[in-house]
Amino acid sequence: MIVEIINTGNELLLGRVLNSHQQWLCRQFADRGYVVTRQIAVADSAAAIQTAVRESLGRADLVITTGGLGPTSDDLTRDAIAQLLGKSLREDATVLAQIEKFFAARNRPMPASTRSEAQVPEGATVLPNYFGTAPGLAMEVPSGKFREANRSSWLVMLPGPPRELRPMFLEFALPLIQRAFPITDAFVCRTFRTTGIGESTVQEMIESAMQPLVSAGLELGYCARPGQVDVRCVACGATAVEQIAAAEKLLRERLGESIYARDDESMEEEIIRALTERKQTLALAESCTGGCIAHRLTNVPGASAVLLGGFVTYSNQMKQQAIGVQSQTLAEHGAVSEPVAREMAEGARRVTGADYAISVTGIAEPTGGSLDKPVGTVFIALAGSNGTEVWKRVNAWDRETFKEVTTQQALNFLRIALAR
Amino acid sequence: MIVEIINTGNELLLGRVLNSHQQWLCRQFADRGYVVTRQIAVADSAAAIQTAVRESLGRADLVITTGGLGPTSDDLTRDAIAQLLGKSLREDATVLAQIEKFFAARNRPMPASTRSEAQVPEGATVLPNYFGTAPGLAMEVPSGKFREANRSSWLVMLPGPPRELRPMFLEFALPLIQRAFPITDAFVCRTFRTTGIGESTVQEMIESAMQPLVSAGLELGYCARPGQVDVRCVACGATAVEQIAAAEKLLRERLGESIYARDDESMEEEIIRALTERKQTLALAESCTGGCIAHRLTNVPGASAVLLGGFVTYSNQMKQQAIGVQSQTLAEHGAVSEPVAREMAEGARRVTGADYAISVTGIAEPTGGSLDKPVGTVFIALAGSNGTEVWKRVNAWDRETFKEVTTQQALNFLRIALAR
Repeated sequence: MIVEIINTGNELLLGRVLNSHQQWLCRQFADRGYVVTRQIAVADSAAAIQTAVRESLGRADLVITTGGLGPTSDDLTRDAIAQLLGKSLREDATVLAQIEKFFAARNRPMPASTRSEAQVPEGATVLPNYFGTAPGLAMEVPSGKFREANRSSWLVMLPGPPRELRPMFLEFALPLIQRAFPITDAFVCRTFRTTGIGESTVQEMIESAMQPLVSAGLELGYCARPGQVDVRCVACGATAVEQIAAAEKLLRERLGESIYARDDESMEEEIIRALTERKQTLALAESCTGGCIAHRLTNVPGASAVLLGGFVTYSNQMKQQAIGVQSQTLAEHGAVSEPVAREMAEGARRVTGADYAISVTGIAEPTGGSLDKPVGTVFIALAGSNGTEVWKRVNAWDRETFKEVTTQQALNFLRIALAR
Repeated sequence: MIVEIINTGNELLLGRVLNSHQQWLCRQFADRGYVVTRQIAVADSAAAIQTAVRESLGRADLVITTGGLGPTSDDLTRDAIAQLLGKSLREDATVLAQIEKFFAARNRPMPASTRSEAQVPEGATVLPNYFGTAPGLAMEVPSGKFREANRSSWLVMLPGPPRELRPMFLEFALPLIQRAFPITDAFVCRTFRTTGIGESTVQEMIESAMQPLVSAGLELGYCARPGQVDVRCVACGATAVEQIAAAEKLLRERLGESIYARDDESMEEEIIRALTERKQTLALAESCTGGCIAHRLTNVPGASAVLLGGFVTYSNQMKQQAIGVQSQTLAEHGAVSEPVAREMAEGARRVTGADYAISVTGIAEPTGGSLDKPVGTVFIALAGSNGTEVWKRVNAWDRETFKEVTTQQALNFLRIALAR
């Protein structure tokens, strides 16, 4: 089955926003056994949209478009596609009533331009929008129109805002797609996330062991990012589940503790889960990561039960006042040093009464480095009931990547400690 | 001029990663007066890559590919394209020496598979990779091969990792592109970022005033996200700069304080800049945003000079101990209340001696709401030398969006206060 996604929007081609629809939609399809074959982004121009849709309808069983259904002057998708398919538009009374209700519920007057969202091409199925005003649209394009005879296609138009697109896709588009294209073959995709080793090394550690599975049809892929390498296994057919299980067993044997998560599991979820199970608590003292560790941990529901609190101790004064770092230690060793990291973690643990405390002190880009301690130098400490461990790393990245990589390392030290 | 970008990678079509190359490359082109016409993502298969490259070379003056140049088994782009163009590959001694040097400098053995990265198609220009091992490649594809006569194309292959792709593009690919395709026409794209008003309302506030400029060729676009609407103006030709200046004047008259930034300026940069200018300092007391405000502010170089520190006071105990919230206030009003927000901000300001302090206390998804204070309820306080102001908002979003929107609101209150 051939699935193509067409994202419309000048903001995409001008590089003003990230295309989060691509990842989200591709992921939804993959998790249900459909693989997107191609994704295309084109500008908000009727000609560009029509060319892309015509080409995709000539190849694909299912074409999804995103964006261009709203009320503003650059929303052209609905009209352009109706014209391409030779369909007239009519105002749908039910859709109009829903739009009026949306504004009434918010005590806001309905802008006149919004009325255009109630225009529906003849024969199209309306996909309701519970989180906005523009409905989605779905229609079957008969065989012979753009493709060879006996091969019809489905065309589904979704609105641009993610908060509207996502629930609409899951609740209304997906059931329609699953009815039109039932999946018979099993398909499993699993990503193993590793940290601490490079891409070539990961490959060398697993390649020969994985060879028999690859020969039997397992697809193996790698994706390297700062501080992590993902290993992706895809299997199809009757033995897909067994193949993935065998792959996981081998990968865990070879890569051990370097694997920190599967698929969308995150390090922070694993940590909150482990602390909750052990009924233990955590405190943070962050200097150079500036709240990034706290931010990631508090993204996890339930974090409030185990994370007692955090200190963003940017200034030396705050290091001393809030968590009791000694002025002598700061004077002797400097704020970025092993002893200060140690006192920060121990101080945060003491002040909050937490079971564990993590501290981070380092030098982020652009300034502050020296010959001894170049930009990127960081000390990470973990204090617990068995004492305090301190690690030194040099994360020579730009400022934001430095924060990200350092946060990942700090969380990883805690994850490994909690797994013991 | 027609520019197309082809991103290769199964991880894109399986929805495992965001395609950050698209935004970054499109943005680099737009800033220099080139507009990307189409972006395509295809899987790591020789057939899919060859089909997409052949189609793009049939249309475009410049085709950029990303990914598939590395050492692992799913890196197929170089071989697939050499085959498509009928070019043989040869090992390039200079490239091989650079790769060997890369590993030697890191005291790591060179994995055997890495040697494949030194293969260069005949006639290709090598684009050095200073941040990794796989070089980029550029070549002119003669007219008549995929396009009509008299229209040759350029093909540029870039590696997948952003940290390698970005400096290579700026340092080596871009000068080559600018030599091959000199820009004569002015092109200006400017995005105005607004917060606090909806998309339709923004359009109603500016539409009629902007009409004369739009009739004269200005392109106007909108992009809505939680808590913000971007207004994008694009102008071409000799009067582009004047057109954009006139548009900015009108937008500022109509939208006033709602415009918080232009282009890539962020609210946090504006705040750090204003505090630095005024030689004033800031402290934070975050409950439900869990460090997100601190994280965003500390992404800005120079934050350490004005941000004295932050408290992530998830527990009531920490609210009391660290920043002196009264136990009676907590008991009487609850942790999510106007008086607690006030005491948090005033306490953080007092403890750190900062000129300003922001506090946030609220209820993030999934649990903790009540009839009086539904999930999403949040109190934001700003304490300064003129007293303390508190705002109440109901941000009924999922947990991560709630943190993001609340952070944006808190920063916006501070931004407006600093602008007065």
